[in-house]
Amino acid sequence: MSTEMNTLLPEPMTDAFNTEIETLGPCTVRSPLRYHRYVSDSDRALYSQNLNNVMAQIKAGHPLISFELAGPREMIFFDPSNVKAAIVTCGGLCPGLNDVIRAIVHELTYMYGVKHIKGVQYGYAGLNPNMGFPLIDLTPNTVKYIHEDGGTILGSSRGPQPIDVIVDTLYREEIRMLFTIGGDGTLKGAHAIRNEIERRGLKIAVIGVPKTIDNDINLVSRTFGFETAVGSALESLRCAHSEAEGAINGIGIVKLMGRNSGFVAAYAALASGDANFVLVPEVPFEFDGPNGFLSHLEKRISERHHALVVVAEGAGQNLFSEPTGVDRSGNRKLADIGLLVKQRVGDYFTRLGLEHSVKYIDPSYMIRSVPATADDGVFCLFLGQQAAHAGMAGKTGLLVGLWNDVFTHIPIEAAIQHRKHIEPKGILWMSVLESTGQPERMVNESIPAAGA
Amino acid sequence: MSTEMNTLLPEPMTDAFNTEIETLGPCTVRSPLRYHRYVSDSDRALYSQNLNNVMAQIKAGHPLISFELAGPREMIFFDPSNVKAAIVTCGGLCPGLNDVIRAIVHELTYMYGVKHIKGVQYGYAGLNPNMGFPLIDLTPNTVKYIHEDGGTILGSSRGPQPIDVIVDTLYREEIRMLFTIGGDGTLKGAHAIRNEIERRGLKIAVIGVPKTIDNDINLVSRTFGFETAVGSALESLRCAHSEAEGAINGIGIVKLMGRNSGFVAAYAALASGDANFVLVPEVPFEFDGPNGFLSHLEKRISERHHALVVVAEGAGQNLFSEPTGVDRSGNRKLADIGLLVKQRVGDYFTRLGLEHSVKYIDPSYMIRSVPATADDGVFCLFLGQQAAHAGMAGKTGLLVGLWNDVFTHIPIEAAIQHRKHIEPKGILWMSVLESTGQPERMVNESIPAAGA
Amino acid sequence: MSTEMNTLLPEPMTDAFNTEIETLGPCTVRSPLRYHRYVSDSDRALYSQNLNNVMAQIKAGHPLISFELAGPREMIFFDPSNVKAAIVTCGGLCPGLNDVIRAIVHELTYMYGVKHIKGVQYGYAGLNPNMGFPLIDLTPNTVKYIHEDGGTILGSSRGPQPIDVIVDTLYREEIRMLFTIGGDGTLKGAHAIRNEIERRGLKIAVIGVPKTIDNDINLVSRTFGFETAVGSALESLRCAHSEAEGAINGIGIVKLMGRNSGFVAAYAALASGDANFVLVPEVPFEFDGPNGFLSHLEKRISERHHALVVVAEGAGQNLFSEPTGVDRSGNRKLADIGLLVKQRVGDYFTRLGLEHSVKYIDPSYMIRSVPATADDGVFCLFLGQQAAHAGMAGKTGLLVGLWNDVFTHIPIEAAIQHRKHIEPKGILWMSVLESTGQPERMVNESIPAAGA
Amino acid sequence: MSTEMNTLLPEPMTDAFNTEIETLGPCTVRSPLRYHRYVSDSDRALYSQNLNNVMAQIKAGHPLISFELAGPREMIFFDPSNVKAAIVTCGGLCPGLNDVIRAIVHELTYMYGVKHIKGVQYGYAGLNPNMGFPLIDLTPNTVKYIHEDGGTILGSSRGPQPIDVIVDTLYREEIRMLFTIGGDGTLKGAHAIRNEIERRGLKIAVIGVPKTIDNDINLVSRTFGFETAVGSALESLRCAHSEAEGAINGIGIVKLMGRNSGFVAAYAALASGDANFVLVPEVPFEFDGPNGFLSHLEKRISERHHALVVVAEGAGQNLFSEPTGVDRSGNRKLADIGLLVKQRVGDYFTRLGLEHSVKYIDPSYMIRSVPATADDGVFCLFLGQQAAHAGMAGKTGLLVGLWNDVFTHIPIEAAIQHRKHIEPKGILWMSVLESTGQPERMVNESIPAAGA
Repeated sequence: MSTEMNTLLPEPMTDAFNTEIETLGPCTVRSPLRYHRYVSDSDRALYSQNLNNVMAQIKAGHPLISFELAGPREMIFFDPSNVKAAIVTCGGLCPGLNDVIRAIVHELTYMYGVKHIKGVQYGYAGLNPNMGFPLIDLTPNTVKYIHEDGGTILGSSRGPQPIDVIVDTLYREEIRMLFTIGGDGTLKGAHAIRNEIERRGLKIAVIGVPKTIDNDINLVSRTFGFETAVGSALESLRCAHSEAEGAINGIGIVKLMGRNSGFVAAYAALASGDANFVLVPEVPFEFDGPNGFLSHLEKRISERHHALVVVAEGAGQNLFSEPTGVDRSGNRKLADIGLLVKQRVGDYFTRLGLEHSVKYIDPSYMIRSVPATADDGVFCLFLGQQAAHAGMAGKTGLLVGLWNDVFTHIPIEAAIQHRKHIEPKGILWMSVLESTGQPERMVNESIPAAGA
Repeated sequence: MSTEMNTLLPEPMTDAFNTEIETLGPCTVRSPLRYHRYVSDSDRALYSQNLNNVMAQIKAGHPLISFELAGPREMIFFDPSNVKAAIVTCGGLCPGLNDVIRAIVHELTYMYGVKHIKGVQYGYAGLNPNMGFPLIDLTPNTVKYIHEDGGTILGSSRGPQPIDVIVDTLYREEIRMLFTIGGDGTLKGAHAIRNEIERRGLKIAVIGVPKTIDNDINLVSRTFGFETAVGSALESLRCAHSEAEGAINGIGIVKLMGRNSGFVAAYAALASGDANFVLVPEVPFEFDGPNGFLSHLEKRISERHHALVVVAEGAGQNLFSEPTGVDRSGNRKLADIGLLVKQRVGDYFTRLGLEHSVKYIDPSYMIRSVPATADDGVFCLFLGQQAAHAGMAGKTGLLVGLWNDVFTHIPIEAAIQHRKHIEPKGILWMSVLESTGQPERMVNESIPAAGA
Repeated sequence: MSTEMNTLLPEPMTDAFNTEIETLGPCTVRSPLRYHRYVSDSDRALYSQNLNNVMAQIKAGHPLISFELAGPREMIFFDPSNVKAAIVTCGGLCPGLNDVIRAIVHELTYMYGVKHIKGVQYGYAGLNPNMGFPLIDLTPNTVKYIHEDGGTILGSSRGPQPIDVIVDTLYREEIRMLFTIGGDGTLKGAHAIRNEIERRGLKIAVIGVPKTIDNDINLVSRTFGFETAVGSALESLRCAHSEAEGAINGIGIVKLMGRNSGFVAAYAALASGDANFVLVPEVPFEFDGPNGFLSHLEKRISERHHALVVVAEGAGQNLFSEPTGVDRSGNRKLADIGLLVKQRVGDYFTRLGLEHSVKYIDPSYMIRSVPATADDGVFCLFLGQQAAHAGMAGKTGLLVGLWNDVFTHIPIEAAIQHRKHIEPKGILWMSVLESTGQPERMVNESIPAAGA
Repeated sequence: MSTEMNTLLPEPMTDAFNTEIETLGPCTVRSPLRYHRYVSDSDRALYSQNLNNVMAQIKAGHPLISFELAGPREMIFFDPSNVKAAIVTCGGLCPGLNDVIRAIVHELTYMYGVKHIKGVQYGYAGLNPNMGFPLIDLTPNTVKYIHEDGGTILGSSRGPQPIDVIVDTLYREEIRMLFTIGGDGTLKGAHAIRNEIERRGLKIAVIGVPKTIDNDINLVSRTFGFETAVGSALESLRCAHSEAEGAINGIGIVKLMGRNSGFVAAYAALASGDANFVLVPEVPFEFDGPNGFLSHLEKRISERHHALVVVAEGAGQNLFSEPTGVDRSGNRKLADIGLLVKQRVGDYFTRLGLEHSVKYIDPSYMIRSVPATADDGVFCLFLGQQAAHAGMAGKTGLLVGLWNDVFTHIPIEAAIQHRKHIEPKGILWMSVLESTGQPERMVNESIPAAGA
């Protein structure tokens, strides 16, 4: 399921982004697959499902925005008998990494007959010989049971490596397809690698499989691991709810992932049904004042004597005065809103002189390092297969996504331009407001309304 | 995620089905919701996402098939202050039933201010006074924690009840919205109820929420409970695999749900990665002969000494000679293919004189009576909300579905005309063939190829 | 926790069984362990904890029954540098098999420095060269993660193999310690192997680790896998309860393991709190008559409209007229009481003309093939360590057990004389009666009372 | 299973503690139970199972230390028809609290026919009228499904309340049996309450059910919730292991419960098999120096490039210079060793200039607020039953414990004198050393050896 039903949202009326996919050259090799129906490059999925929108575009003479379909091509670019592939996983852990690795290895080996697949250790660092991590062999045997485990058998790392060194390595190792599984930073790196490859006139395909536990990649309905993460987060919420109910004016606070978007927090809150407040990056809030969070929390506590607060890590960053710098992936470092909420809540009730008990849970890594659920596992399997098809067809500079239930090819460039966010007027956030009973706005008068 | 990516399939070029939704009359009541953007009845989602298909239709002057969007309407038909609703669950259990009940109750009560919601006990039987099951009150309090449990708090039953008696009851009890959560038989019943309501000129809305653990309802991408069921089924497969590996020439056989479609079996097999054979209704097979299942199983056993076979309950029904009649829901009774596979496999290896061990697992009810996973739970929440919106808007004879990631209204009539099936040439079955290594066809020469 | 608190039971007043442990010869090698306190062969644990019983024995001049303590000895029999060990798993799967294998391998390798450990494939069959299963090497590396999986990496089988062939194999392969992990049949085999070894004057230690998911081995408080099995069984009961509640006069029936004792059924019923009837081998029952099971079930159904029945596979065997023979392990084959209960219940309510629904669940292999829980896993670890200590000390013909919270050595001969049973007047069964509300006796007048 | 096998430990040779249980007066009421064999007050369980120890005591003319057996008495003190009971839960959450409450309510109601049972809200605070928490009614209906949830339906709190006010409340509310479920502080409170009751000459029984997730209560083999906690802790360790393996020189650090004893940490580490260092209160360590923890961690990292460190919250308290005061329960506040380890490890490897990644997990409340496992649930059931028996028999000032697999009565006074600890030379710690490979001592020369 998509993180947010977009039925109510206006569709872009212009081709706001390029959706053309590049290829390394003409496809002259007949695919060894036994598929009956191949996908053609002219098969495309509409960006918009909205009938009125589509008709208006046509009427206005605008082209319809659409994405190239993923899937097996009848004619492919690489000769399976002598092409060498490599897989790299970057950034933080996410449920399903091993599933994607396994799917790519299986598809390339069993279906295409590719004989040489290398695993890059520890992210892009493994493509920098100075780091000292040799490439390892990946075969169906080495990946047989890895989908049952969390983490990534390849290891991962954050941060950039010199692009020219990476391309040197690819060239020297005769890698012709590089599968990069990672988030925003990784995709930016993949984009730079692809540019350098093109500059040198090499024939190396760069295919991205988007990874973000926050499920906030643009033009992609769903990213792997999100469903699993929501399930894990739900367990934290259940614990925090038990803790809150078990204490006099007990307040459970759970900090969840979500740097720029609060999808994990929102979904986990909806799944639990016990959350009373959900704080996300998309909806500003204030602690103080008559319409501030603390005032509303006090009201809840005085009525029910326990409360459950869910806070996404990227929420309320405007409430910190000091700058935080950036981390090695180039992401802005976040101030710890979870601890701030914990402290402010404790201080507030202490000042009120009200007996209370704050129970703070930061499940952190426990949400992202578990094995994928069955459904996420199958999704990863499909993603890996599509990535393999794209690579064999010599496509490059793209990522494999899911859009309205079909697998598509998205130019990396288009995907990294924006992030998806919770729409404060959309069905998801309305459901959260309804489920929690929290007010639509927890800011005081002088501040403009959320989304206004 | 949809059970099958339809990217490779041809789209219907004609308006093969009616997608118009009926309403009980003009909507003259202003919605009490605080939504910012309401859905209009003219908002529609395209049936086809396929760009080429859409353009061809337009060129040919054909109207584009589309579905009315689900969602809150600004003007509604019923006055929340005096409308009475009822909810009924029918047929076999399915994970998420309680979640849907809870979501409808919450949406009607908290958002619309509806004061009277009745629960119908034990399916349509609860609308037949002769059965002796009184209606019960449903309030946010009675449904507070029910989403944490499997089953249905309302109880369920199979089989029809006299339609006129049901409508008498609705009339006498002053029910104005009937929410029916059930499968094929239930929807047919709902259709008949709606027809009788219309014949009498009553203003009672009938809204269906489709329930099928097999995920095979036409025009609906995903039905609730399916994801959870796949997760449960996966556990059975893991057990059967351990049993098979633990014995000399061990053969684990798992029978799973799937009367007419093998989606649960296919998905569970993909999630496990250990299945060697998947037998589904859509793909005929033979036991005997050089290209029969038993011969291929023998080959696998001789090579690896253990095997895992997954069989959907509706597979191989042609292999039984005797007719089986129909059950109370009007479904054709199925002969027990699981036990037949178990017996034929045992006989075959015994006749071969090969030491072997057959371990048969029929998890049956254990797959459908568990609580919904987090993701399924949120999906149920959205479904229930959409159903409530549809009911308040006076829409009738429809079901609430998900199509390519948007919630839609589908005429019950259109939905019950066909069932979804695994496409034997599609991406899902291709993935199963690849993952299992089983041959595309396990029939001998005289029989036409699957799907041919 | 022991399956049954024996506090109320009389203690045997005579040395009803031999508790002496044999050794292969004097221990002349200094243990390489770095333990600070070794166990001496004269360290013994009392059979009885009952103060009055112990004082009475002393007064009567009887020796106190006691067991040799398990644990590391300061002086050992085998020289770790050149001793070769083998491990075999026999009979049905049980949670924790891999944990025990892993613990023995770790203890022998890391602590004692043993360099050669062989895994016997497929039970005793793997010691019969005619079966064609070679011994495999076991190292810390091959067993690294096996505790995370159910089943046994060695494979298993039922039934005897020629004892002299087995001993020939041990001799030829220079195995000096044989660790047999298995149940009653396996222990009898181990006893015969040990006798043949002695007859030939060989110095080969045979150490048993008792395995029975039914937890019914004499003189052993707890066997591994039982706790895990109860947890799995509980899930089946929860499903059956949901099914029963969800239907008109729904009757959930769950068949659980328990050939001669009903411990799994009793424990699972207590854990669930939902069971209304528990049928076990130890407590006879009748179907018919005013005080029969069916009559009581009817009463429950008429009052509450749903019921949950748990039946152990060995219950009610007297209700079958035909003999059933024995299986390959020499166990009496059991008639299928689960199916009989299902059929009799269905017939009874059909004859009554009462609308009803019977939901039958036989989780069978799904209970025994799952990985061990954390607590069971640690228990297996300790068991494997104790077995390794016993083997290195040259002890033979024994099994490693837990008795009142201490690890002990029990002569195999003593352990296989009887089985543990639920005491129909004891705390466990009283708790079951209380929890279920079922009558103490479900037989009619002409039959003597249970346990009388 | 007991947290530690005491087979190797010397037994106390003197009656180091009083084991006599007080009663409120002669038992003149015939028990309404239908038990066949009642327990007599003269039935006692030996403290020591050690044969040699017992014989030595007898030879020396010393009385054998023993405990009164728990269980139903034929003659009881209270008349069930007019006795009123109350249940209170105090201190931190622990898996199984609801199970114990439910068991007491069931036993008193169904078996004894007690009609009035009150729940005390929020610990001892609920017995202080000034706090404003009224007593609530507890019936089988209100506790029907509470065993499926974590937490406590009664709520809990820390810290003392005025003893005379509590006894005033008991007197005024006509409570005749007070069941206190709690840890050390709670038991001390119960002891004081019992003393004040005695001083006033009242006939009110005070029965404790010991609660400590750390499993460190003296004279008690096992406390409820421990097994469940170990299972939850294991999940954290698995996540931390995945995180460590997934990063360059990844170091996973998990902080677990264990104020004075490291049983949870030790058991979880053994269950995981992945831990490389376990830091517990019982075994001092140093960070620095050639034999310090950091030096050994560096060695591990240089060899294997990832490590898993488990630290109990009470470990290394000597490494903090500043005093920390006491919390409301009167427990010494602990400095945060988890954060200190995290910081010191990070600093160390940063100073070394070694690329590394520290992943810190503090699952905290997530371990104690989950529902009890099946086995823990049954254990709680038995505990609650024994407590009810003790109360009805008019016993007071005792707690119900498990000792070597039998349920016993322990004077509260004796239980609160000491705590159980991991024995650094015992089987448990030896297993941890073996499983982790960590050195026996991680201190430098000038510091005396652990346990020396």
